[in-house]
Amino acid sequence: MRVGVLTGGGDCPGLNAVIRGIVRKGVQEYGYDFVGYRDGWRGPLENDTVRLDIPAVRGILPRGGTILGSSRTNPFQAEGGVRRVKENLAAQEVDALIVIGGEDTLGVAARLTDEYGVHAVGVPKTIDNDLSATDYTFGFDTAVGIATEAIDRLHTTAESHMRVLVCEVMGRHAGWIALHSGLAGGANVILIPEQPFDIDQVCAWVTSRFRASYAPIVVVAEGAVPRDGDMVLKDESLDSFGHVRLSGVGEWLAKQIEKRTGKEARTTVLGHVQRGGTPSAFDRWLATRFGLHAIDAVRDGDWGAMVALRGTEIVRVPIAEATARLKTVDPALYEEVGVFFG
Amino acid sequence: MRVGVLTGGGDCPGLNAVIRGIVRKGVQEYGYDFVGYRDGWRGPLENDTVRLDIPAVRGILPRGGTILGSSRTNPFQAEGGVRRVKENLAAQEVDALIVIGGEDTLGVAARLTDEYGVHAVGVPKTIDNDLSATDYTFGFDTAVGIATEAIDRLHTTAESHMRVLVCEVMGRHAGWIALHSGLAGGANVILIPEQPFDIDQVCAWVTSRFRASYAPIVVVAEGAVPRDGDMVLKDESLDSFGHVRLSGVGEWLAKQIEKRTGKEARTTVLGHVQRGGTPSAFDRWLATRFGLHAIDAVRDGDWGAMVALRGTEIVRVPIAEATARLKTVDPALYEEVGVFFG
Amino acid sequence: MRVGVLTGGGDCPGLNAVIRGIVRKGVQEYGYDFVGYRDGWRGPLENDTVRLDIPAVRGILPRGGTILGSSRTNPFQAEGGVRRVKENLAAQEVDALIVIGGEDTLGVAARLTDEYGVHAVGVPKTIDNDLSATDYTFGFDTAVGIATEAIDRLHTTAESHMRVLVCEVMGRHAGWIALHSGLAGGANVILIPEQPFDIDQVCAWVTSRFRASYAPIVVVAEGAVPRDGDMVLKDESLDSFGHVRLSGVGEWLAKQIEKRTGKEARTTVLGHVQRGGTPSAFDRWLATRFGLHAIDAVRDGDWGAMVALRGTEIVRVPIAEATARLKTVDPALYEEVGVFFG
Amino acid sequence: MRVGVLTGGGDCPGLNAVIRGIVRKGVQEYGYDFVGYRDGWRGPLENDTVRLDIPAVRGILPRGGTILGSSRTNPFQAEGGVRRVKENLAAQEVDALIVIGGEDTLGVAARLTDEYGVHAVGVPKTIDNDLSATDYTFGFDTAVGIATEAIDRLHTTAESHMRVLVCEVMGRHAGWIALHSGLAGGANVILIPEQPFDIDQVCAWVTSRFRASYAPIVVVAEGAVPRDGDMVLKDESLDSFGHVRLSGVGEWLAKQIEKRTGKEARTTVLGHVQRGGTPSAFDRWLATRFGLHAIDAVRDGDWGAMVALRGTEIVRVPIAEATARLKTVDPALYEEVGVFFG
Repeated sequence: MRVGVLTGGGDCPGLNAVIRGIVRKGVQEYGYDFVGYRDGWRGPLENDTVRLDIPAVRGILPRGGTILGSSRTNPFQAEGGVRRVKENLAAQEVDALIVIGGEDTLGVAARLTDEYGVHAVGVPKTIDNDLSATDYTFGFDTAVGIATEAIDRLHTTAESHMRVLVCEVMGRHAGWIALHSGLAGGANVILIPEQPFDIDQVCAWVTSRFRASYAPIVVVAEGAVPRDGDMVLKDESLDSFGHVRLSGVGEWLAKQIEKRTGKEARTTVLGHVQRGGTPSAFDRWLATRFGLHAIDAVRDGDWGAMVALRGTEIVRVPIAEATARLKTVDPALYEEVGVFFG
Repeated sequence: MRVGVLTGGGDCPGLNAVIRGIVRKGVQEYGYDFVGYRDGWRGPLENDTVRLDIPAVRGILPRGGTILGSSRTNPFQAEGGVRRVKENLAAQEVDALIVIGGEDTLGVAARLTDEYGVHAVGVPKTIDNDLSATDYTFGFDTAVGIATEAIDRLHTTAESHMRVLVCEVMGRHAGWIALHSGLAGGANVILIPEQPFDIDQVCAWVTSRFRASYAPIVVVAEGAVPRDGDMVLKDESLDSFGHVRLSGVGEWLAKQIEKRTGKEARTTVLGHVQRGGTPSAFDRWLATRFGLHAIDAVRDGDWGAMVALRGTEIVRVPIAEATARLKTVDPALYEEVGVFFG
Repeated sequence: MRVGVLTGGGDCPGLNAVIRGIVRKGVQEYGYDFVGYRDGWRGPLENDTVRLDIPAVRGILPRGGTILGSSRTNPFQAEGGVRRVKENLAAQEVDALIVIGGEDTLGVAARLTDEYGVHAVGVPKTIDNDLSATDYTFGFDTAVGIATEAIDRLHTTAESHMRVLVCEVMGRHAGWIALHSGLAGGANVILIPEQPFDIDQVCAWVTSRFRASYAPIVVVAEGAVPRDGDMVLKDESLDSFGHVRLSGVGEWLAKQIEKRTGKEARTTVLGHVQRGGTPSAFDRWLATRFGLHAIDAVRDGDWGAMVALRGTEIVRVPIAEATARLKTVDPALYEEVGVFFG
Repeated sequence: MRVGVLTGGGDCPGLNAVIRGIVRKGVQEYGYDFVGYRDGWRGPLENDTVRLDIPAVRGILPRGGTILGSSRTNPFQAEGGVRRVKENLAAQEVDALIVIGGEDTLGVAARLTDEYGVHAVGVPKTIDNDLSATDYTFGFDTAVGIATEAIDRLHTTAESHMRVLVCEVMGRHAGWIALHSGLAGGANVILIPEQPFDIDQVCAWVTSRFRASYAPIVVVAEGAVPRDGDMVLKDESLDSFGHVRLSGVGEWLAKQIEKRTGKEARTTVLGHVQRGGTPSAFDRWLATRFGLHAIDAVRDGDWGAMVALRGTEIVRVPIAEATARLKTVDPALYEEVGVFFG
């Protein structure tokens, strides 16, 4: 059995742990061969491969990023893409493909399996934790840990100057990172995309925190929006190259808070720091087990299946189920956490 | 409603987060009063209390340890203990008690509720993660993270000198910390109490690792034992005070490996470092939610209930169920991880 | 002897360690009393004090920020400021003042001592490490450590996507943080305020790094400027409140690099995260020793003196000497580090 | 010019940074070739070499350990050792040798240069910071940081149980790690090899700390000894293999404190964790600069010179001067720190 492996979409701590798990078990227990594909779907599309065996996966467990590279290439959008992928898989004598990626990358795998008979197995990957059908995805815990440590640090600088500190974290469509890091970091306001916020309410929380003689920390997901949707857009402007420059919600919030409460406010945008570097122990555990179970799914010929976490168990679900809808923050959970606001 | 809170047993990162969650929600949403009891069951036994209100829980979220102190006092082993506890609760007009602790501390709560009508609610606490009925307990993730970071560091020193490094971690009866940190740290051998080990097999793994030109890391839970149970005991000796000095299993292993493989071996015993200091983001999230749900159980009068994690949900289970038997590592899971040995 | 203590200017990890060192030695060895002044020079100006004794400094060593608060208040700019400061010091029977701060805060201390006979001793504080007369200031090592860890993380995300990652760090007038963290983080380009940069050279380094099949990391101090000084200014624009919005140099660089090299580029702005949170061990050591030596200077009546680090020794220098000119990066040192560019 | 490089003695975070600095500057600026020698002096003794060029040093900056391996081999103790080293250097056409190591490794370099005309340049390496002629050695800051973080964690577990926690750190002959990490970690007692301790005084400090309602942390260098030198020796015993088992001073202290004060005490022995893993930013800076200056010394033909840190400058000193005597903790400095004891 010859198995191809690819990683697609944005990078995520733990990708290398998945790859290592797949290869170690595949070679040692099942005697499989492996082909690494470079840069996500671009690999099979262009027949760009890399050696993938036990020596190739030594020492990669603690390393962030992906030794296979990544891209957002979609074979369905390339001229004759599906045909080329199938031809290239055949040329490499690849019997099965393990696809590690998010909604888009896995969506391609599901369609190739369902419609074109490709033998694919999926491993979910999203740093935002917004894939249905799995309790957690690897990378998320690392991102939350980095954001929490940053928020811990912001507290002391906020207190020393009695300023508002706004911390913008990742999360375009789902507020999981903001919710977890905000709670863990003891934030006084947490704003998520799922719940358009009322700027007056935000300012009320800020003011109430100052009244208790503490300085407020506002954690905001990059995709959070005010209830009156036009407001952030007003802050758009053209930069010197004529591009529209959409000010991030964090910066916008800081200005609004300054204007409305009269208190100084500063913004930190964590950005790519959240998705790089060594994975947390939790993510190494989860990613490794995803890898071990993905190769088991290959052995079982369970095409179209995706590994997922349920409690402490790794289970299999149809890829299609996992990518059907975004897993967003339940209003009840947001309300539960809201007891710490203000 | 007046609610007493106590923390018993060994300390654990996240205890303060539980206390803060209880008090914030209890005061703000339900208007309850609180009484902090000092040093576990010693508090109600000796009526030793401490003020517990919103100002008392400010800033404690990231702090390890417990602001209430802890002990292993058991009122059932004290002269008139149960009577004194009941009298002291009545004297403080305490209507309900939230008991945060492990098997022993919770066992007292269960008996007081079942046999003596005390209104108690439990919150599980064990750094070893060995309580049934909950997927994880807080403190465990922090301990695994600390151990993993240590193992990461040991790799480089092992490689530079081509030595065996043995790392002894916590886990007297269950190997969860060893299993998780060993896997996450890329250990070549992991030994747990649930599976008596064969020293010849250990040496075979060590030798095989050297053959691949790498230096082996052996992670061993403090409670792991060799198959031939007498062997470790032979290493006993009397110290200068006439006490029996049982050499830890880590030190014993290093000596055996040196003797049998001819390779140099060194031991690190992480000890209390694993249970102190700031909790990880995961543990702060879990502990806080345990606190929020414990006060809800009080509001519902759900005496004898314990909060527990199932997947991503906090549920309630009878305390008795949780403390009935130890949650140990499943042989199938140990075998799954075993693909990385050697 | 009664000693007042104040902390002024931007906050900096290690301030609390200085305060603790002063008070522990002052009380235990010399039997002094202390008065804490709130919010820098605002404290003596408005006679706003806080209790400062051994219990007040317990547990503050590892905590970021300052228990005394800080501000940029300048008594020379307040109506009758000097007179009020002198009266308030007299009212509190304060014999000597220990002033912990940067150029501005210490400048006030120097003038009050020289021109108005106030008994002041200085402790240098600047996270940017740009004060003359001392090898290092506390807070700098912590900031460099945080920035280095962020750069470490950016490497993996850069490699996985073969993108340029620009990391903007603190340093308005001096490039010490950029230079140290850039070198320690293995950056491929480091830009500092002392050396106006040539954007064509930057792009040449970026391109050369890609040619070696690696992704470039560009570390830039917030105060770095291109040789043609107008260029960044062109990127100014008005935001929705009519304020001038000066795009940071990091964002500007990313756009220029994208435009000129055709490679994707992303920016991370670390911001206040660099100056908050627990100090590094180095900073705790340095700050504590500064505190111990500052109280010795008080005992010696060495008014107008500032403590400073020379090698491993703490020495005393005139405040005026330290604040006379900025300590900037020597061109020779920048060139030495330049061997790693590209 | 062809330059050999070797690393000897115990490993130390930063060794790879030195190697990278040497090679990057040597190749890019001076056009030199390099030969890596394996495992310290064993390399030239047995002509065991490894390729050392720009690709070989990519990515090694943040990695602990040494890519060249290390050993304690001494050519002066090997049959015909000096002759073989000289022959092997000639066989490889090596014109100069950069020797990175501690007292022993550098001592060999000094003798080979002085007595046998070998062209050697030294780079000091000792995690214990006990080499004369340099303010700091790389690796020390990393070790102090790791020990400080461990002590931070021990505080909370000590407080929660009101126990004494003893933390044994590295330092056989010099107490630098104990002194710096003990001060930075807020220890209540620090014991170093330079100052034999009085166990009664230790117990007095412990008791005084409890009286203030806090739990004491005792930091002890592994080489610290009680004034009555016989005492620790009494704790010796034979293990099951008939080896003498010298209980560490940390364990001995805990027992003595328990016996004399009646308080519970626990010991943590950090061990090899202190010398492994990624170097701190400070150590990466220092090690890199040592590398850059070592290759400059080669270019200058400054045989027998060693690079050293003086303040913020890298200077050159004769190797012999640096290895002549151990740099130990000055009694005045120990007394300065003593204000925090008890």
